[in-house]
Amino acid sequence: MLTLDKIYHARYVLKQVIRETDIIHAPNINPESEIYLKTENLQITGSFKVRGAYYKMSQLSDEEKQRGVIACSAGNHAQGVALAAQKNGIPAIICLPDGAPISKVEATKSYGAEVCLVKGVYDDAYAEALRQRDEKGYTFIHPFDDENVIAGQGTIGLELLEQLPEMDAVIVPVGGGGLISGVAYAIKSLNPDIKVYGVQASGAPSMFNSVHDHKIERLESVSTIADGIAVKEPGENTFKYVSEYVDDIVTVTDDEISAAILALMEKQKLVTEGAGAVSVAAAMFNKVPVKGKKVVCLLSGGNIDVTILSRVIKRGLLMTGRTCSLNIELIDKPGQLLGVSSIIAEHGGNVISIHHERANEGSAVNGCYLRIVLETRNYSHIDEIKTALKTNGFKIVNE
Amino acid sequence: MLTLDKIYHARYVLKQVIRETDIIHAPNINPESEIYLKTENLQITGSFKVRGAYYKMSQLSDEEKQRGVIACSAGNHAQGVALAAQKNGIPAIICLPDGAPISKVEATKSYGAEVCLVKGVYDDAYAEALRQRDEKGYTFIHPFDDENVIAGQGTIGLELLEQLPEMDAVIVPVGGGGLISGVAYAIKSLNPDIKVYGVQASGAPSMFNSVHDHKIERLESVSTIADGIAVKEPGENTFKYVSEYVDDIVTVTDDEISAAILALMEKQKLVTEGAGAVSVAAAMFNKVPVKGKKVVCLLSGGNIDVTILSRVIKRGLLMTGRTCSLNIELIDKPGQLLGVSSIIAEHGGNVISIHHERANEGSAVNGCYLRIVLETRNYSHIDEIKTALKTNGFKIVNE
Repeated sequence: MLTLDKIYHARYVLKQVIRETDIIHAPNINPESEIYLKTENLQITGSFKVRGAYYKMSQLSDEEKQRGVIACSAGNHAQGVALAAQKNGIPAIICLPDGAPISKVEATKSYGAEVCLVKGVYDDAYAEALRQRDEKGYTFIHPFDDENVIAGQGTIGLELLEQLPEMDAVIVPVGGGGLISGVAYAIKSLNPDIKVYGVQASGAPSMFNSVHDHKIERLESVSTIADGIAVKEPGENTFKYVSEYVDDIVTVTDDEISAAILALMEKQKLVTEGAGAVSVAAAMFNKVPVKGKKVVCLLSGGNIDVTILSRVIKRGLLMTGRTCSLNIELIDKPGQLLGVSSIIAEHGGNVISIHHERANEGSAVNGCYLRIVLETRNYSHIDEIKTALKTNGFKIVNE
Repeated sequence: MLTLDKIYHARYVLKQVIRETDIIHAPNINPESEIYLKTENLQITGSFKVRGAYYKMSQLSDEEKQRGVIACSAGNHAQGVALAAQKNGIPAIICLPDGAPISKVEATKSYGAEVCLVKGVYDDAYAEALRQRDEKGYTFIHPFDDENVIAGQGTIGLELLEQLPEMDAVIVPVGGGGLISGVAYAIKSLNPDIKVYGVQASGAPSMFNSVHDHKIERLESVSTIADGIAVKEPGENTFKYVSEYVDDIVTVTDDEISAAILALMEKQKLVTEGAGAVSVAAAMFNKVPVKGKKVVCLLSGGNIDVTILSRVIKRGLLMTGRTCSLNIELIDKPGQLLGVSSIIAEHGGNVISIHHERANEGSAVNGCYLRIVLETRNYSHIDEIKTALKTNGFKIVNE
């Protein structure tokens, strides 16, 4: 049974281990509301997961601690369990699917855990973890559906009540639902007037569907850049707590999540992973009622692969008119490239790449194509360059 | 005259305006030392500059306040002055060179300052600001060579002494020297055992040269990705304070700065600009004695253009083996592309782009080139793919 006592106890236990992460005012996320960010992306291990994992382990019997723990995760939970085990002096095995990114495997190992790579996907690694639990007597550390884990995550709720007692609402990312269960339980127990909203990725709406249909539902597949909350099925405990304590659950798209990641980088100088930014996406795109309110967006984690970050930035630059890609049809005669180059230079466009191609099936026999990628200032700058090119007789195709 | 009293007074004045930014443990920057980050990149306006600007303005007479202030900057100082003026209720004009990035112009305007775009470079904008000062009686807010400005920046030193009193050293970015003058004065006055190191970009070593030659020297030109500290000449006051209170000044290269920016993003989830990351670069690459020490790296700001950030990431990915670009010479017959594709797929390489080109002056008449950009895991993964290609008879050129 989850109790407020247990969450207070978790807070006492965690005091020496975790950071009480800062809360930061973010004036540029939504001009119509006062947004604050709870920066669990700056938590040790880069996510909130270490809170629940550590508290859970601290409550094991001496015998259980000696036998060790096992968990299954390709992400933040792996690192949380590994670090918590190290700090508790408990042996830990983490099962990961063998396709897991090297960086996550290395991070998990760096905290002293033994990594067990399992052929297949997450479900295979999960099955292997349960098999080893049964065979060897390890304690399985569930990523969310465990009341001590939930109590650990709930400590964030207590911190928020102290850091911004006058908040009207808090927006929380939802995967399996452990984080929001703890946060909602703590907040609603102490101040039921504060709204608690959950956010899922539209490509993995398991809790969203389950809550709206009033029964646990399992998704066949999930697909989102917010891999940290791509969970197929809520837990029994978390489903119960979310149904009882959470005011509403909404979803956001991958494009909205990308925009939120970019805004957090540019305006707030914070790196978040997809799952960590869904709360901000919900506030930016008014998915929950934030107008005129003082709202905390919980940034749950920052462990985004830098390759993905690079793609998010690229997409964000395109979407905000700061890069543009032009296909220009040229007549195949000398001087054409010079003409285009000088028009672009004159209007302050900065060339990133050029690809020049002779006649193909799509162009006239004496024609060729020039594909140029430019750094631009904004959409009106792009229009200015396009207009100048057209005025000078160049044809822009596939606009 | 700078006094400790003045810095304490600045701290009192600033209390209601600025954030006392968090200090964060960063275990992965240098394995041989205990590194902490003072996160002024998370300061309002995204840099420490607002501290000095606000305190300076708060000390103006009522008459001076009414006439207004003028400043010249294409960067953080502009935003700091604009916000400080707004909060002090003082009219402000900021002169910028007309080539300044739109984003910086917009940010400055968003704080209510009047922007005056001056044709030319920084020096032209500076001359125009002085002209308007003389003509219209505005107070010029110097970016660094002013004792009230220095006192404002010095408040960071007081915060550090409270946040981590047992620190052995602090590493501070140096442009004109206002920040380090204030920080060093505060720290050395209260605990002379704490070392204070300054860091400049090797492409703009004005204070470095001046201090080592014991006289103020002016650089003809500066060139670095750390544009926030690309200052041609130190101030008279700052040169004096740095010479007296700073233990050593070192320089870091643009590649080292890029590596630091990437490490801060990946490991610490923090976005920093080039100038903001030089302190971390110095710690990462052992430019100052950090081994076995408890060291604070001051992250002075986070206002990096996202286009530049994207380039830094791209370079970082290449340098760490997480992308690779291969030029493969093919015989011009069907099935060759299939062969290459299947080898790459089999070894888990993820194709980002392909460019396929028929005979040119560099290749045999019946040959062609394939240029492939791949996402890879690390250098040994790249070697694995290259070896497999060679074993199957493909020739890799320009390795």
